[in-house]
Amino acid sequence: MAKIISGQELSETMRSEIASDAAEFHSESGMAPGLAVVLVGADPASEVYVRMKGKAADKAGFVSRQVTLPPETPEDELLGVVAGLNADPSIHGILVQLPLPKHIDSARVLLAIDPDKDVDGFHPMNAGRLAVGDESVLAPCTPAGIIEMLMRSGYDPSGRHVVVVGRSNIVGKPVALLLLRKGRGGNATVTIAHSRTKDLGAITRQADILIAAVGRANLITGDMVKPGAVVIDVGVNRVDDPASSKGYRLVGDVAFDEVAEVAEAITPVPGGVGPMTITMLLRNTVDAARRLHAADAARGAFAD
Amino acid sequence: MAKIISGQELSETMRSEIASDAAEFHSESGMAPGLAVVLVGADPASEVYVRMKGKAADKAGFVSRQVTLPPETPEDELLGVVAGLNADPSIHGILVQLPLPKHIDSARVLLAIDPDKDVDGFHPMNAGRLAVGDESVLAPCTPAGIIEMLMRSGYDPSGRHVVVVGRSNIVGKPVALLLLRKGRGGNATVTIAHSRTKDLGAITRQADILIAAVGRANLITGDMVKPGAVVIDVGVNRVDDPASSKGYRLVGDVAFDEVAEVAEAITPVPGGVGPMTITMLLRNTVDAARRLHAADAARGAFAD
Repeated sequence: MAKIISGQELSETMRSEIASDAAEFHSESGMAPGLAVVLVGADPASEVYVRMKGKAADKAGFVSRQVTLPPETPEDELLGVVAGLNADPSIHGILVQLPLPKHIDSARVLLAIDPDKDVDGFHPMNAGRLAVGDESVLAPCTPAGIIEMLMRSGYDPSGRHVVVVGRSNIVGKPVALLLLRKGRGGNATVTIAHSRTKDLGAITRQADILIAAVGRANLITGDMVKPGAVVIDVGVNRVDDPASSKGYRLVGDVAFDEVAEVAEAITPVPGGVGPMTITMLLRNTVDAARRLHAADAARGAFAD
Repeated sequence: MAKIISGQELSETMRSEIASDAAEFHSESGMAPGLAVVLVGADPASEVYVRMKGKAADKAGFVSRQVTLPPETPEDELLGVVAGLNADPSIHGILVQLPLPKHIDSARVLLAIDPDKDVDGFHPMNAGRLAVGDESVLAPCTPAGIIEMLMRSGYDPSGRHVVVVGRSNIVGKPVALLLLRKGRGGNATVTIAHSRTKDLGAITRQADILIAAVGRANLITGDMVKPGAVVIDVGVNRVDDPASSKGYRLVGDVAFDEVAEVAEAITPVPGGVGPMTITMLLRNTVDAARRLHAADAARGAFAD
């Protein structure tokens, strides 16, 4: 039976590190790291996420601000809110909760966020910095969380063959680019497979580290995993479960029970990658706060 | 013996297509596509490249402008030249020849180029658009040229396993991202290997299409290639050759003679990927000219 890599436990450790960094930043700068979360509309799942992010930020000693706008908010008004947050020196991280209502062009909104406050890491400028291997980029939270899970569990990807199943812009491609960087958590040989890949099992069986990020319940079965591999399951899928009070339960992209028989280590769903995502959002916010404050201080010194 | 994929021949075909697109643009817009090449200093290799680019642009019916600055030019002055070219409506493509003198921060200069005129595709914004799979991005010329060579030789990468050896920002990573896009020339399963990869041969032997972009003479030997594979050689390396008048000759990263015995098709060095790079620079310039002109026309219509 594989070792379980608990995102819950790693998150607790990391969040107490982040809280202590936030306190240090506060005492140096006179202000807490500030995170603004913008929610347009009343999607119940989005409301839950936004509340969780706000709570986690408060608990870490941040100032958190939630801006809630009605679903019919015009795009220009949302852009105005973003511009205000860009200009606000007490805000160091800005997150616009996706998905946005259909009448709003999400790409235009993400492009409007100051890249230095883009703690979600979705601005094209940050995607570009990530692509060229910049070590100080604000990287997307889920991919960055995967790297932390590997490093903190003793599975440094350097020199290993990592197979990423899924080529999305929020997980598959950015995690591949992080794994290719020349610094900490990088230097892996990386294969990216996806829906058009022929004989997926032949590819996944080569993986020393297998990352499944497709969104298809139980896609990765035991026969697709090399004995001794480390398996990171990013998928969160609902499957019918009459025994559950909700009528469904959440499962990953990996058939947990059979893969756990083969793998050296595996992340559970829930309690695996999920908790790491908000943790990395907090990490990015403290990092952004420090950098913005240092840049301000440098400008101040220059003006003297 | 493998089929030879001639970049020279493909380039001739493409350059006549580009010349005809340039003529069409000229008759629609009243101006030729304009390419500005900026050279700082007098590096002999850079001078040769810049001259070749100017000649190719002239031959395709472009307006080409070469700005040559002395090696001691301050960074601010170079940034001023770039700002002037950004503002010039007769210039649609701007290329600053690398490497720049050491006292100039190349990253800052590349960042100053208007991303819509960045025909080299090195601006972080364009790197980001490429990373998220944008089909209309100005992609770096060598990677884009590799995709054209494959498509025009009948080797569509879709559904094939492509192994890229090398993770540079100018070839390895961008070609991998192009191969992962959901459009033309994409949809491949992609593995990126590099200097830290263990048992490189075991990885390269899986390739339906093998792209070598490392810069090590004869790194890829016959035993590292699957029979029937298509091999693209991006390397250009000098090796001593007393029989040559120059005392050296140029070879690729692929041991041509032995790999040609195994492969289905192979690109030569020179005459392979090399000529495609300038061709794609011309292609990017016409595409940029069309887009800038369409955006101008839309703004004009809006102003009426």
